[in-house]
Amino acid sequence: MIPDLLALTADLVAIPSVSHSEGALADYVESDLRARSGLRVERIGANVLARSELGRPSRVVLAGHLDTVPANDNATPRRQDDTLWGLGAADMKGGLAVMLELAAAREDPAVDVTFVFYACEEVGREHSGLLRIAAEAPDLLQGDAAILGEPTYARIEAGCQGVLKLAAELRGTRAHTARPWMGRNAIHRLAPLLEQVASYQARQPEIDGCRYRESLQAVLVRGGVAGNVVPDQATVMLNHRFAPDRDAATAEAALRDWLEPVLDPTLGDRLDVAEVSPAAAPSLGHPILAALLRTTGVPARAKLGWTDVAFFAERGIPAVNFGPGDPELAHSADERVDRHQLESAYSALWQLLTPTRSK
Amino acid sequence: MIPDLLALTADLVAIPSVSHSEGALADYVESDLRARSGLRVERIGANVLARSELGRPSRVVLAGHLDTVPANDNATPRRQDDTLWGLGAADMKGGLAVMLELAAAREDPAVDVTFVFYACEEVGREHSGLLRIAAEAPDLLQGDAAILGEPTYARIEAGCQGVLKLAAELRGTRAHTARPWMGRNAIHRLAPLLEQVASYQARQPEIDGCRYRESLQAVLVRGGVAGNVVPDQATVMLNHRFAPDRDAATAEAALRDWLEPVLDPTLGDRLDVAEVSPAAAPSLGHPILAALLRTTGVPARAKLGWTDVAFFAERGIPAVNFGPGDPELAHSADERVDRHQLESAYSALWQLLTPTRSK
Repeated sequence: MIPDLLALTADLVAIPSVSHSEGALADYVESDLRARSGLRVERIGANVLARSELGRPSRVVLAGHLDTVPANDNATPRRQDDTLWGLGAADMKGGLAVMLELAAAREDPAVDVTFVFYACEEVGREHSGLLRIAAEAPDLLQGDAAILGEPTYARIEAGCQGVLKLAAELRGTRAHTARPWMGRNAIHRLAPLLEQVASYQARQPEIDGCRYRESLQAVLVRGGVAGNVVPDQATVMLNHRFAPDRDAATAEAALRDWLEPVLDPTLGDRLDVAEVSPAAAPSLGHPILAALLRTTGVPARAKLGWTDVAFFAERGIPAVNFGPGDPELAHSADERVDRHQLESAYSALWQLLTPTRSK
Repeated sequence: MIPDLLALTADLVAIPSVSHSEGALADYVESDLRARSGLRVERIGANVLARSELGRPSRVVLAGHLDTVPANDNATPRRQDDTLWGLGAADMKGGLAVMLELAAAREDPAVDVTFVFYACEEVGREHSGLLRIAAEAPDLLQGDAAILGEPTYARIEAGCQGVLKLAAELRGTRAHTARPWMGRNAIHRLAPLLEQVASYQARQPEIDGCRYRESLQAVLVRGGVAGNVVPDQATVMLNHRFAPDRDAATAEAALRDWLEPVLDPTLGDRLDVAEVSPAAAPSLGHPILAALLRTTGVPARAKLGWTDVAFFAERGIPAVNFGPGDPELAHSADERVDRHQLESAYSALWQLLTPTRSK
């Protein structure tokens, strides 16, 4: 019998857990796991882990973040029929409810399972609860495959694209605007750079049947000295998403090649890496992830954004995104999840973990 | 006999007078005028005026600003041989020294003269001492012609170009950078706009023998929402200098025509006037200014920047820029003036005002 996942999600939404303030929700999760799961529970800061130690030949990690972005007039959960609205309903308290009910399920599983409830996923990566756990108790994160409960509409979103942020700085020479020919306008020099960025030919490689789609976007531009001065400096921040058939160094080299015609190092132009997050391969050939794919009954698709599957992939653990809820609604005022989504995700994971049904 | 203008300039440089802090220098100027000039002296805030009332058929206004930009390691005057270095040496305490010595000259002049020493020229126009005098005692600014003592290398720089600052705002549609095709990148849309700005075909009209040279420069650019968001907005501030054969409305209309192909009002793009300062015609046909031109012995050239000659021109008073010092050194750490410049400017103005020599 499937538990009332919508009611549990509503309880979780009712406990505020904006990033850096996950303590109350971590307390709730810890208590619930200690009371209902029969698993070994560990607490590290605002992170909670629960693991079976049955000596099974393989171990699956189910991971989900406790935090939400700040409220958007949607702090109070509101339920109508089989739909629940509220901050975090989709991203990802619905997924947390699925994890808690799976932890409480009494069937004898085919694999060992580690549940990871972690803090600070929605803020700068340096705050990530996963990084803290990895620093303090890396063994607790070991496993043969990982499933991240981010909202994916209860279908596998495989791997993730990497992110490379590059700061392009163009230089010029200051002059008075009444005598601009004495200088060189760095803002005017943005024109060919931005044209090159906008015309980037995005690769769309297919890996494990998933079509990735790279992108290159200018996300920030700054330049200028004063209202009467020909500016000698302008900066553009570029956000590049690269498919998992490339590592970050290859992606960076390709981008430098693409932008080389519109930069002039003799003027002092520079291209600096501001941030890099690796891509993660889909890994759908892994037996556990392949089994999950079969139980969902729908084809996997590529994850185009970056998620913590890359955290696990970097550590040699193949991982996929799989959870209830519409990813497009994440961070929106209209964020919601419905019972059918919760039950689809629960059922697929329950079949994966429980031998009598799925193997 | 020519007075020691270099020594007086050094005294003036030694009195700090950064914009909004001209009080001490105004006190010095007021005392000097009351002690030495025999003219009627008025004080309005940090502005000092001195006028003859001889009933001559025409009146010349000699105007100069008391303030300087902030110091650039050059607050203390330093003299070597016939050159004086220091903040304001060229812009324009050399000119003030010339004005003070002309006010103290005892010859019976051919014209009535009004000396205007005013505050806050180097900051936002709304602070201008000339505007304060115009508001409180407009009659004191009346005259048939005006000479502004800004540094011009002691040759006439005629009229001035107008300034039109336009804010161009481009719009787009936000999206996640992993799915940029869902949005429209407003920063990418800067490329054709900046290309159009950079390729502006500047007019170079000749007026009264002076060649003006228009310009269009992007001076500020801002855009972006967050590192992972396709931006929906980007703004460029444009600085346009237009020749005195155009009024501001004509210049604005021409600029709107030029930029029309790269703006899309249906997306919400806008072009807003941020600031407008009118141009001033060279007016070299006016008898007083023509006489000054003859005494300088060198051709006039066009003033490409904006100066307070436009203040007088707007009020129907033809005006030119004429003063000692190199305008290119204004606001630089190396600002300086030499005795020869001071004496050239003094002599030309003295000849203009004194009938026995020049008429």
